[in-house]
Amino acid sequence: MMTFETVSENKAFGGTQGVYKHSSAETGTEMTFSVFVPDHAEGSKLPVVWYLSGLTCTHANVTEKGEFRAACAEHGVIFVAPDTSPRGDDVPDAPDEYDFGKGAGFYVDATEAPWSENYRMRSYIESELPGVIAANFPVDMDRQGITGHSMGGHGALTIALRNPDRFKAVSAFAPIVAPSQVPWGEKALGRYLGSDRAAWAEYDAVALIEGGARVPDLLVDQGTADNFLEEQLQTHRLVKACEDAGIDATIRMQDGYDHSYYFISTFMADHIAWHAERLKA
Amino acid sequence: MMTFETVSENKAFGGTQGVYKHSSAETGTEMTFSVFVPDHAEGSKLPVVWYLSGLTCTHANVTEKGEFRAACAEHGVIFVAPDTSPRGDDVPDAPDEYDFGKGAGFYVDATEAPWSENYRMRSYIESELPGVIAANFPVDMDRQGITGHSMGGHGALTIALRNPDRFKAVSAFAPIVAPSQVPWGEKALGRYLGSDRAAWAEYDAVALIEGGARVPDLLVDQGTADNFLEEQLQTHRLVKACEDAGIDATIRMQDGYDHSYYFISTFMADHIAWHAERLKA
Repeated sequence: MMTFETVSENKAFGGTQGVYKHSSAETGTEMTFSVFVPDHAEGSKLPVVWYLSGLTCTHANVTEKGEFRAACAEHGVIFVAPDTSPRGDDVPDAPDEYDFGKGAGFYVDATEAPWSENYRMRSYIESELPGVIAANFPVDMDRQGITGHSMGGHGALTIALRNPDRFKAVSAFAPIVAPSQVPWGEKALGRYLGSDRAAWAEYDAVALIEGGARVPDLLVDQGTADNFLEEQLQTHRLVKACEDAGIDATIRMQDGYDHSYYFISTFMADHIAWHAERLKA
Repeated sequence: MMTFETVSENKAFGGTQGVYKHSSAETGTEMTFSVFVPDHAEGSKLPVVWYLSGLTCTHANVTEKGEFRAACAEHGVIFVAPDTSPRGDDVPDAPDEYDFGKGAGFYVDATEAPWSENYRMRSYIESELPGVIAANFPVDMDRQGITGHSMGGHGALTIALRNPDRFKAVSAFAPIVAPSQVPWGEKALGRYLGSDRAAWAEYDAVALIEGGARVPDLLVDQGTADNFLEEQLQTHRLVKACEDAGIDATIRMQDGYDHSYYFISTFMADHIAWHAERLKA
């Protein structure tokens, strides 16, 4: 049975910032997410931007620190922030590892035991949560964009590349662009999906582009002082893949910015405007 | 000996969001505070807005959730956020009380034992920290404004009223306006200052105004859905005191907003603009 519960609602920037939870069939757990709904004419339906968070985060980090509400209110855009993994005492975890298990779902459907039962964040984000959002909020599901940070940037890019008909806009903050080729991704994909690297390709933005997947255009911001840039993010691989594929990618190296929400919040309004322009065209 | 240490610095909105600590002679403890310095021409000095936080907060709440940096960068204003009390294992506390002791300094110089040794937040904010700020940041100390939230709104109003020559602008979010007449204030002032209510008046904005203290003008935002409004905040007392005194007060009752940072962040840009207009006049 579908459950849906309001955890909290606060008025903000003329709209409503809510936190909600529901029981997910995909993850087999209760899942929490946040939604900001700007002020709008009664009965109208608004475009929606999905924001996928990074390692160790829940919905709360961007909800509190993301500074998206002013721009969403200005442009009339709904903002949805899901959690990054299943949660709960019964869910398998790697408690000493910040980059695997809870808080590190990597937006995959795991195929390896013991992860495969609950770690189904791909299907959760692609299939289940959209139904919950459509049923409970004034969204126009024909106008969806997706963005995210770090691991969530990886999620946004791969989900958009696999679902070009669903998303009219895609962007990312400091994304992991080629998880098959960096330590975070080799570890997570190897343990969630097994050692056959062929199964990893659909979860790798650069591999997807090299395999022919396309998005019409793309906005990425990446800080030059990000201490994960060289080893884990490797933005240059996305630059090259987009060049080779002829994808119109705006990939901005932002001087002196790090990997934190101080970086994300600085460029959030630009990203919301990017999505709004494409979703309201 | 004066110590001053950088805890962290992150680039944000073109400037630097820093967290710093120093050993305070007033409180006898190490004190932590945050400062945002916008991008500015080398050698130039910028106006500064002080933000005093509310009960249970440290510098971190507004630094993470306040959404002040975009406006401060736009207007070229430095933003300083001190802590709300002395800290440390040696500092007397009331650990089961959220509204007294650590996190609840009420911006007074306590006169009662055991609080009087460390709880000197009035002198810390009025006298000591300004010297630290002037010595370490590109501030024009002739252009200072002050604001705050709840207990910090009380701090901002009373400090501005007692120091009209120092502050060219004052505002507050959901301030305690008459602590002598509400439970939070009666408890805190009674225990920090003793039972003689005559000693409380200099820590009570309405009493200060009734006693002749003046500011040129004033901006206050107060949510109508704030669950502390009726018992603790009593905005109407400030409205009446300003009317009786002829103070040009803009006191806005904001429909549906509560006491949270969702409320504060919504109106933060308005307050920064208010201060900038007066500090740059």
